[in-house]
Amino acid sequence: MLDHHELAALDAYWRAANYLAVGQLYLMDNPLLAEPLRPEHIKPRVLGHWGTTPGLTFVYTHLNRVIRTRDLNMIHITGPGHGGPATLACCWLDGTFSETYPEVPRDATGMRRLFRSFSFPGGLPTHNGPEVPGSLHEGGELGYALSHAYGAAFDNPDLVVAAIIGDGEAETGPLATGWHGNKFLDPVHDGAVLPILHLNGYKIGNPTVFARIPEEELDQLLRGLGHDPVYVGDGTERGDGAGPPAVHRAFAAALDHCLDLITDAQRAAREGGVTERPRWPMIVLRTPKGWTGPGEVAGRPVAATWRSHQVPLSGVRDDPGRLRRLEEWMRSYRPEELFDATGRPTGGLLRNVPAGARRLAANPHANGGRLRRALPLPGVREYAVEVTGPGATLHHPTEVLAGLLRDLLRRTADRRDFRIFAPDEIDSNELSAVHEATGNGWQAAIWPVDEYLSRDGRVLETLSEHNCQGWLEGYLLTGRHGLFTSYEAFVPIVTSMANQHAKWLKGSREQSWRAPIPALNYLLTSHVWRQDHNGFSHQDPGFVDQVVNKSPQTIRVYLPPDANTLLAVAAASLDATDLINVVIAGKQPTFDWLPIDEAVHHVARGVSVWDWASTDAGREPDVVLAAAGDVPTLEVLAAASLLRRHLPGLAVRVVNVVDLLRLPPPEMHPHGLDDTTFDALFTTDRPVVFGYHGYPWLIHRLIYRRHGHDNFHVHGYREEGTTTTPFDLVVRNGLDRYRLVIDVIDRTPGLALTAVELRQRMRELRAEHHDYIRTHGIDLPEVRDWRWDGS
Amino acid sequence: MLDHHELAALDAYWRAANYLAVGQLYLMDNPLLAEPLRPEHIKPRVLGHWGTTPGLTFVYTHLNRVIRTRDLNMIHITGPGHGGPATLACCWLDGTFSETYPEVPRDATGMRRLFRSFSFPGGLPTHNGPEVPGSLHEGGELGYALSHAYGAAFDNPDLVVAAIIGDGEAETGPLATGWHGNKFLDPVHDGAVLPILHLNGYKIGNPTVFARIPEEELDQLLRGLGHDPVYVGDGTERGDGAGPPAVHRAFAAALDHCLDLITDAQRAAREGGVTERPRWPMIVLRTPKGWTGPGEVAGRPVAATWRSHQVPLSGVRDDPGRLRRLEEWMRSYRPEELFDATGRPTGGLLRNVPAGARRLAANPHANGGRLRRALPLPGVREYAVEVTGPGATLHHPTEVLAGLLRDLLRRTADRRDFRIFAPDEIDSNELSAVHEATGNGWQAAIWPVDEYLSRDGRVLETLSEHNCQGWLEGYLLTGRHGLFTSYEAFVPIVTSMANQHAKWLKGSREQSWRAPIPALNYLLTSHVWRQDHNGFSHQDPGFVDQVVNKSPQTIRVYLPPDANTLLAVAAASLDATDLINVVIAGKQPTFDWLPIDEAVHHVARGVSVWDWASTDAGREPDVVLAAAGDVPTLEVLAAASLLRRHLPGLAVRVVNVVDLLRLPPPEMHPHGLDDTTFDALFTTDRPVVFGYHGYPWLIHRLIYRRHGHDNFHVHGYREEGTTTTPFDLVVRNGLDRYRLVIDVIDRTPGLALTAVELRQRMRELRAEHHDYIRTHGIDLPEVRDWRWDGS
Repeated sequence: MLDHHELAALDAYWRAANYLAVGQLYLMDNPLLAEPLRPEHIKPRVLGHWGTTPGLTFVYTHLNRVIRTRDLNMIHITGPGHGGPATLACCWLDGTFSETYPEVPRDATGMRRLFRSFSFPGGLPTHNGPEVPGSLHEGGELGYALSHAYGAAFDNPDLVVAAIIGDGEAETGPLATGWHGNKFLDPVHDGAVLPILHLNGYKIGNPTVFARIPEEELDQLLRGLGHDPVYVGDGTERGDGAGPPAVHRAFAAALDHCLDLITDAQRAAREGGVTERPRWPMIVLRTPKGWTGPGEVAGRPVAATWRSHQVPLSGVRDDPGRLRRLEEWMRSYRPEELFDATGRPTGGLLRNVPAGARRLAANPHANGGRLRRALPLPGVREYAVEVTGPGATLHHPTEVLAGLLRDLLRRTADRRDFRIFAPDEIDSNELSAVHEATGNGWQAAIWPVDEYLSRDGRVLETLSEHNCQGWLEGYLLTGRHGLFTSYEAFVPIVTSMANQHAKWLKGSREQSWRAPIPALNYLLTSHVWRQDHNGFSHQDPGFVDQVVNKSPQTIRVYLPPDANTLLAVAAASLDATDLINVVIAGKQPTFDWLPIDEAVHHVARGVSVWDWASTDAGREPDVVLAAAGDVPTLEVLAAASLLRRHLPGLAVRVVNVVDLLRLPPPEMHPHGLDDTTFDALFTTDRPVVFGYHGYPWLIHRLIYRRHGHDNFHVHGYREEGTTTTPFDLVVRNGLDRYRLVIDVIDRTPGLALTAVELRQRMRELRAEHHDYIRTHGIDLPEVRDWRWDGS
Repeated sequence: MLDHHELAALDAYWRAANYLAVGQLYLMDNPLLAEPLRPEHIKPRVLGHWGTTPGLTFVYTHLNRVIRTRDLNMIHITGPGHGGPATLACCWLDGTFSETYPEVPRDATGMRRLFRSFSFPGGLPTHNGPEVPGSLHEGGELGYALSHAYGAAFDNPDLVVAAIIGDGEAETGPLATGWHGNKFLDPVHDGAVLPILHLNGYKIGNPTVFARIPEEELDQLLRGLGHDPVYVGDGTERGDGAGPPAVHRAFAAALDHCLDLITDAQRAAREGGVTERPRWPMIVLRTPKGWTGPGEVAGRPVAATWRSHQVPLSGVRDDPGRLRRLEEWMRSYRPEELFDATGRPTGGLLRNVPAGARRLAANPHANGGRLRRALPLPGVREYAVEVTGPGATLHHPTEVLAGLLRDLLRRTADRRDFRIFAPDEIDSNELSAVHEATGNGWQAAIWPVDEYLSRDGRVLETLSEHNCQGWLEGYLLTGRHGLFTSYEAFVPIVTSMANQHAKWLKGSREQSWRAPIPALNYLLTSHVWRQDHNGFSHQDPGFVDQVVNKSPQTIRVYLPPDANTLLAVAAASLDATDLINVVIAGKQPTFDWLPIDEAVHHVARGVSVWDWASTDAGREPDVVLAAAGDVPTLEVLAAASLLRRHLPGLAVRVVNVVDLLRLPPPEMHPHGLDDTTFDALFTTDRPVVFGYHGYPWLIHRLIYRRHGHDNFHVHGYREEGTTTTPFDLVVRNGLDRYRLVIDVIDRTPGLALTAVELRQRMRELRAEHHDYIRTHGIDLPEVRDWRWDGS
């Protein structure tokens, strides 16, 4: 039970934070209300959100207390949108903001600067973006509060992550499955997540589902989601209940109760050997939207309705009555008790603020790069496949990579700072070897029939791409390393999350006080060209098109053509920072082209001429055959083989692209080749017949500033698909070897009569192969005539 | 209680369906096992999925019975992935497949063709794609079973939608929030959704969360989600329980119980005036994965484990022992009792099959285009704003459109076949006028303070883009019309759903028996250029880049530059069929450029020269200034104004693009302009300075085959954003009028000295404006010098 002094200190901090939040929304000047408000003190455009603010400041205030009284290692995730004013107010109050931005001190000067900077051109955002100390979750696009919280808690056994969930956000799909994180949280090796569902009842324009279902139904739902909820509120979210002092007391008691339960559960698991999943505690906090704000405006209720979502008083600059209302509102927090004449918070108010790095905004887990350790990557040569000659052997690239991942999991067994996340596809994607190093983490029932499930496994599989992505993001943002592997066709499910993470990385790179965080690594496999039985819905190579729209500093795309090159790509990308690496690789048997040393060089260069497949030795080629991706590489090499055999006089250069973002010029992407190198590889005037893994126009978009770009003829996936064989699929999309040869013939001027005959022969072979496939249901067994020796 | 004959008939149908499913997976020939299986009867590649099949055939079998006994109007949604063999078997048995595909009759010939076609190159998919009669939900990308089901049920008061949810799918975010559809289903005007959660316990490689949490927890969850669950199973999903006869009886009883409750709830609401949301019934069906399939293979349990997910017996063609196992398995269904010597199903087996269009696969709601009625669109002139001259007035385009939408809602008040879906953004997007016609549909508590909530409203707002999209898809697929409006930045949340819908449309267009369905209309507003207080996370114009990768037949993209053009676009797209229309329009005050007649012509042409803003009258222009999008149009017109004033001798042509897919050539898109028209508009040799709404490289990708494409210099969003004013944002991204003028000067050879001076002046003005914004927090009031009169 809070004593009188504690209650007073909490309430003072809360009032101060609310005052500062209102100030951020409205004021350009006169931050301490040293004189009556005048129109020129008001921002010309008032742009911000009040509705969620008082609830967020309330929670922050109380988290301070329990951190201090329990010496907690705690971070917070602010799920509700537009929570910026609340968080900024709180971290300015506790000093972190001024330590991070010394030009905004904790006094009247700083307060004025804070107010002017908020929601001002080029200033502070209204969300908890990377500019905000203590934030690792913006709350711009809603839905990821819980998955981020679980990601942060994994392998941080001492950490408590308070995750505030807005009742609007709670309606989203990602949040709705985010609750299931508790079936994957190991009470021994992981920290705790404390969900705080904030029911303030309204979104922008509507009530929320969670606030308008019967309380009994809500309780069943939360229990069914694996929690033991505690309810706190002032009676109703309509604000006619018990009032702040009672809510302070109830919330403080609820927090203590939940943290006791968390301690008990962790102790039972860690010391008592209890393996049953605990029913983790959580809090439901019901308060009025816009609590403590204007009750009625223009005769209509505002507080405790959706009308306080944004600014509850509009027209303040022009309407003296409204201006007076604003001043009354701000004075209702009794600023004279909260700040001294120089704008410094008065002593008692800060009584509950934790010390130093224990402050929510100063906890290093919320600036996770500071905790990052270099990844102990094994050398790739150990896993390399022997290549006696190009195409002499076949391997499953992802299976080869799995060996490296297994040993990386072993090397991090004690450190526990590397994890793999997958939507139930580890085995399907030929990565089973990772289970030799660790199990699949799983806190629901385990039966004797199960294989490789374990309480402490560091591979997490669940059929939710949203959880996989959100968990990985939370894990990376707190300084650890990881990989997300998915079927290529289904990673667009998290397109928007990848967008937002790229935006976070760009913003975070712009803050010198933020340390670089480990790269977000995607391994996309089971790709578009090998959906033999899954058909059209499983064929979508478009994720890359979305990723390459993001800030070039933050994105890389690799298309390794074989197993060794995949290893080399992994070595070059897994330990990078502040990046999104997209790696697209096959799981099916794939011909080996490059010995490991060549593969490493190939990745370092990004684009290479493959001399052994070319016939232009020392000359300018007549034509360039280029490929990016494993299946296009196979078809391009087969086309080169056909040309060697049938048009031996033609000088063909074969170019392979593994690092896709070498293609644009350096002013468009930091990996871009300079023009001289690009021109030397592709020529400026010869036809380039290009086989690309994805939608072909992406290549045109990347090279449109290059000399000779008009000579590129790109073959790729043209959205023609069905249930069929790999070869039939390349035929349908015009990427097959015969079509490539025909294109070479059509694009190369001055060929002899034999070329015309060859063109006809290619058409016949194409039709024959197609017929065979349709009749027999499989690719032709002899479809291996790509052989580099041209036999 | 089932009598003996009913039970026997149900079991026979189920065995027959399972037999046919196994046949589809394995057999090329010998479909009736007229002789012992030989290797050549087996497909060379066995590609398909058994695990989910027996559960799906079981449900289908039982739905047949209740449709017949109750004369139900019912469709089904098969959520679990790879459900193709089950559905195909069932609809071949009931005759629908042969009616749809007469070349596959219901006899031994047809059975052989069905088997050979399944998962065969170019044949039937393993999912319930558009090729499958009775399907409106493929189950390829998982997560949408419930949202599709609710979408189908809205405004279909007599329809019952049985939605089978796999326990794998249940882990996805979209499905997790899909349950909340019941807070939006009006028991008076809508039909019923009967969720059937099928717990077979495993995904590809792991158990499922829903099958491994305690039963009490599952029960709380389902009750908390608003349902009253009935449990059916053979004791455990390990298959050691009561066996099929008991499960038949229990499931039949459960279905009758649930359908009684549905009838009661609907009657209470429709006749008794009950307005409380019912606790809708649902079924939890727990059966072994791969039920009735091989129990153990190679000493390891297969049935009732994840090992029966795909094909439980592999290597059948090469291993005589396995071949015998397969034959034993197939004969365990006693095919001799199920089919006569000609392969026709024997009489008793079909006893429960409903008649004609009552069959699940023949119900017209599952081929919704057959029920489509033309939309009673009001004429656009009624809503047009008066335009006395270009830029003389300002309107909020979406607010103008809202008038038309309001009246469309009124005109469909009785038909109830048009709905709007939005993630809590109707008011925010200036569409409030629609509430003059109808409320927001809402079945949770309604309080006196609420506005425009109603039980029967036809606008549905929920903070789940997944539900909005899924509901709309279900609504369209059953032949009704609708619109999804969203902030532009957050529609990428449903990128993958749009991908999949486009794929469905392409496949559906290829089936002559499928009638065209109404277009999926997106109204994307609150767009990238006007996120003044929301900042970087709310700036993402990339959705279009993803959409334009889809089959050109299925996609359209419109960027109306003002209110009247938005009206004209709406008129041209709302009543289209088999399309995805993406309309990007502003909600902020926007200058009016075109009188309605010109706007209609502009949309019909797609690209127009705006003579009133051009100075090239009758001549070849020196430069073309082109725009697509409202903000680029403003900047381009302002640049043209500056050029008119300062370089009066320069012949400038201003071109506006409203239909983006006029830009590619006709072989790339059906809307593509022919080269002659394109060249006449843009010239083949003059610089084209192009202002585009989104990522600029999209324009290059669309025009790379055009003559003169090297002369295009595109300015657009380059992922440079923050909390700032509209003008600052265009400056940061190089799309502002000054930058455009500078680009014109840089690209136009032979300009006089005045141009050099102007270039310098533009740089100064740009900096001045920028400083003003940073100091005052708002755009310059005089930033209106785009005026067409050039003053």
